[in-house]
Amino acid sequence: MSGKKFTPDWTNTPPVPGSYRSIAKEGRQDQILLPTQEYFEQLKRDLNLDDSYFTHKQDGNQPLLNVPATNLGEQLIDELRAIVGVENVQCDDYSRVKYSYGKLAEEIVSLKRGALHEITGAVVHPRDKFEVQKIVDLCNHTGIPIYVYGGGSSVNMGFRPVREGITLVLSTHMNKVLEVNELNHTCRVQAGCMGPQLEEALNNAPERFNTVHRFTNGHFPQSFEISSVGGWVLTLGSGQASTYYGEPYNLVLSMEMVTPAGIINTHDFPSTATGPRVVDMLKGSEGVFGVLVELTIKIFRFMPENRKYFGYMFRDWQSAVNAAREVCQGQFGLPAVFRLSDAYETEHGFQMYPQPPIVEKLLDMVGYKSGKRCVLMGTVEGERDFTKLVQRKIARIARQHGALSIGGGFAKKWERDRYESFLISEVISDFDIILDTIETSVKWDNVHHIHDAVLAYAHSVPGTFCISHMSHFYPQGSNLYFIFGVKGSVEDYVRYRTALIDAMVNAGGSPSHHHGVGRLMHPWIERFLGKNEMDVLRALKRHFDPNNIMNPGNQLGLGVADEHGQ
Amino acid sequence: MSGKKFTPDWTNTPPVPGSYRSIAKEGRQDQILLPTQEYFEQLKRDLNLDDSYFTHKQDGNQPLLNVPATNLGEQLIDELRAIVGVENVQCDDYSRVKYSYGKLAEEIVSLKRGALHEITGAVVHPRDKFEVQKIVDLCNHTGIPIYVYGGGSSVNMGFRPVREGITLVLSTHMNKVLEVNELNHTCRVQAGCMGPQLEEALNNAPERFNTVHRFTNGHFPQSFEISSVGGWVLTLGSGQASTYYGEPYNLVLSMEMVTPAGIINTHDFPSTATGPRVVDMLKGSEGVFGVLVELTIKIFRFMPENRKYFGYMFRDWQSAVNAAREVCQGQFGLPAVFRLSDAYETEHGFQMYPQPPIVEKLLDMVGYKSGKRCVLMGTVEGERDFTKLVQRKIARIARQHGALSIGGGFAKKWERDRYESFLISEVISDFDIILDTIETSVKWDNVHHIHDAVLAYAHSVPGTFCISHMSHFYPQGSNLYFIFGVKGSVEDYVRYRTALIDAMVNAGGSPSHHHGVGRLMHPWIERFLGKNEMDVLRALKRHFDPNNIMNPGNQLGLGVADEHGQ
Repeated sequence: MSGKKFTPDWTNTPPVPGSYRSIAKEGRQDQILLPTQEYFEQLKRDLNLDDSYFTHKQDGNQPLLNVPATNLGEQLIDELRAIVGVENVQCDDYSRVKYSYGKLAEEIVSLKRGALHEITGAVVHPRDKFEVQKIVDLCNHTGIPIYVYGGGSSVNMGFRPVREGITLVLSTHMNKVLEVNELNHTCRVQAGCMGPQLEEALNNAPERFNTVHRFTNGHFPQSFEISSVGGWVLTLGSGQASTYYGEPYNLVLSMEMVTPAGIINTHDFPSTATGPRVVDMLKGSEGVFGVLVELTIKIFRFMPENRKYFGYMFRDWQSAVNAAREVCQGQFGLPAVFRLSDAYETEHGFQMYPQPPIVEKLLDMVGYKSGKRCVLMGTVEGERDFTKLVQRKIARIARQHGALSIGGGFAKKWERDRYESFLISEVISDFDIILDTIETSVKWDNVHHIHDAVLAYAHSVPGTFCISHMSHFYPQGSNLYFIFGVKGSVEDYVRYRTALIDAMVNAGGSPSHHHGVGRLMHPWIERFLGKNEMDVLRALKRHFDPNNIMNPGNQLGLGVADEHGQ
Repeated sequence: MSGKKFTPDWTNTPPVPGSYRSIAKEGRQDQILLPTQEYFEQLKRDLNLDDSYFTHKQDGNQPLLNVPATNLGEQLIDELRAIVGVENVQCDDYSRVKYSYGKLAEEIVSLKRGALHEITGAVVHPRDKFEVQKIVDLCNHTGIPIYVYGGGSSVNMGFRPVREGITLVLSTHMNKVLEVNELNHTCRVQAGCMGPQLEEALNNAPERFNTVHRFTNGHFPQSFEISSVGGWVLTLGSGQASTYYGEPYNLVLSMEMVTPAGIINTHDFPSTATGPRVVDMLKGSEGVFGVLVELTIKIFRFMPENRKYFGYMFRDWQSAVNAAREVCQGQFGLPAVFRLSDAYETEHGFQMYPQPPIVEKLLDMVGYKSGKRCVLMGTVEGERDFTKLVQRKIARIARQHGALSIGGGFAKKWERDRYESFLISEVISDFDIILDTIETSVKWDNVHHIHDAVLAYAHSVPGTFCISHMSHFYPQGSNLYFIFGVKGSVEDYVRYRTALIDAMVNAGGSPSHHHGVGRLMHPWIERFLGKNEMDVLRALKRHFDPNNIMNPGNQLGLGVADEHGQ
């Protein structure tokens, strides 16, 4: 074999303005990442395809067609305009479609093919929390549903306007960092502030807020660039450095939420013993109780100069998991980023970034065999001597479990690409190939059982692949994150995904560790929590939102099985 | 002056069995700690008393009199006996009084004087959670109130049977450590397990549960010996090592609670994104939602051999607070015990443990002046190199703030006496002197304001004293703990205490950092949380307990203002 290798006609230009693709686009419109030749070869092996498969594509660059008209009355639109200003109410087809879509693979792929789901009646960009309050009052009295669009990164149909209503966009105006309190190590921020805006303000706090030190917010989800601070805590996301910094559930000290039952504005003490904590009841509420308008969050000293990078190769999954557990239970401090790839994901990496044959041969000779070996990598953050200590401890534990140090290069490369790698999936999906992810919480004593159960099913289905890693760690357990690919129709993909989630939950995992529930997970949520816990959530829902105007339509599995009851 | 100093007739024998004193007694009946002569001298200075004040005492050693008869019908008693066995239902006067009392100074002092408050109708000792379920069902159908007695250490009338009903005692039978899961670093325990039972089981886990390692639960409240695991989390207590280990709010992973609306039994994953966390809604619920029967808690490796002790003297409160804040925000790990005494408490310590005059003189010469200086002391726990690192960092920060190392002796002595020191108050209270404490949450930016405001009032009242410390630390703030003494009647004491709490809350503190709300704090709780937050708690109360049988009578400020509405 020789000659130039085949390369598919990857779409390498920004979407045509006004097209389906422009709405489906992840990241900025001009942000494009094409698969490398190695990635392409791996993909063909994974899905058992040859070059001929990649001859026909559907890029979604056609203009929107047949968008159903809004049913909202002109009077309501006028009242909304009176509240937020004429320029902050959008009723055109493009805006209505754009703000009705999240980033679930199923939505994105269908959209590029011109199939629309439910579309919001009007898009409203409130300028401040007082306007939000007026809108909530208006909608509560008229029975108009409210959906809230933060950054639009939901992968579970979390703000899909299942019952037509209005969609509030908080990131347009309500995106300010209001205060950095250096003494308290806290920051007050509007809910629509996007990740980069927040982090930029904190990193530059001396210039922006006249502080002595620079700060970081500590939360860096994969969706960092396309998600809002409010969304982080309402969906219970986890950042990639959560093992050290914690999750939004712990990072958020107080919230101000506008609900139909009134404004909840909690205190920002680090701890009190004043009854059940209402602020925590709002966390994870995914828009069904009210509109989150403001938060006070913890912040940390920004000291990137102290960051350490590490990477280890283990002979097998079992020893790697044991080492990771020992690190998390070691009581010497925790790493920030901590990612353990299973043998499948590790092999994927090796095949996309091939090593010289001599390296492969040597690795094999000393027991790090292809198909068995697993890579653990990460970073340590914090004070200088602390990061040195934790790095040293991790090295010792890794060695004791037979690992080989592979240096910090992997972690550095991963860190550089971390917010971009997902862009590849939108190029590939033009060819009827859908990449997606599911994830679950595990305890140390059931991680292997869940991992085995999910992969046993996953690997039994031809024309698919599934690899996994653990990426959020606690002394008591971790998560499992499954990345899978399916060739074929959206229906094939949905069937496969459903079976994977079934396998995951039946094996004892949770329906989600950090992606949230949304509408996607509603068939699993009551089975997981049980009726009595769901009844508590339903009671809170009735209290906050007696007229069911806040994100109605079976979000969190709470609604009556509306139009979207699958 | 010469000759033998006067010593009051301190009561130095165990209470007479069956007497008021035997119920008022803190700790074990034979556990007695008398004030030293130095303590006595200090007390007289504090309260402006002379020896003649200490000639008449009321020791409460008389037998119980005039206990009101129960109004519970014989049929109910029979049904209870059928559930738990005849021997586990007590209707005698002594048991009914005993299990109706907590440890609030006001209750204890009044009791010794023979004044009874509301008394429970029957004392029931369930043998397991199934019996609890039957009792809750029975009471829910018949409208009989249920109060729960864990260890009885409440200092806020938290289980006072305001409306006659029955009191469940969980520590009699439901006190087992059920499982130590070494892999998960968790422990499953019945709610009535007392502190020492739990810690003993964990420390001896290799012998008791066949584990490799020894463990600790990390939670050591002042009430450790007289409080139950269930009570810890229902009242949101804090342990003395909470700065490192965290509080029960974070230490408890899952709970099983029997409520009139059914059993809530939550998962014990370290984290999930499956909607608002019902387990957290139960924390701090102080008995108003249901009966907590079982918990899964985090555990930690027990490594006392690594523990470091430290102590520093600062020139003033301001520099000491700054140093403590810097430690907590240093991102190198946190100390376990961390206690900063204000100048008043520091001086108290010095006067009770006088130094040689030359030491005093030298301290004064180098700027650690009596009345200004403050002592910070504590411990570091965890892995060996970690404890060394944190100890070293604390030393450096203390030095930078002008502190003098006073070694680990203070912390060791404090640790040895920590569960006993409060026993002195019961001996003193025989003489119409009431010692008590209040405490509040602070943020770093309001700690001085609250401290000043409370002490300004406290020190304006003759015949009283008030000293304070901080003892639970976070990067975002801490607590202030006020110890005060009043000479005179219970009414004088209540008036002073009320004014102190007013001063604390008006200055921006919370009504409680870790003592909870109970009935004592009800006048402040709605003012603090606001109506809308209270409405959320009331909605949950209605859901869990529609017939208001669980700890009714304005507990948490929730009930209609029953008999105990002050």
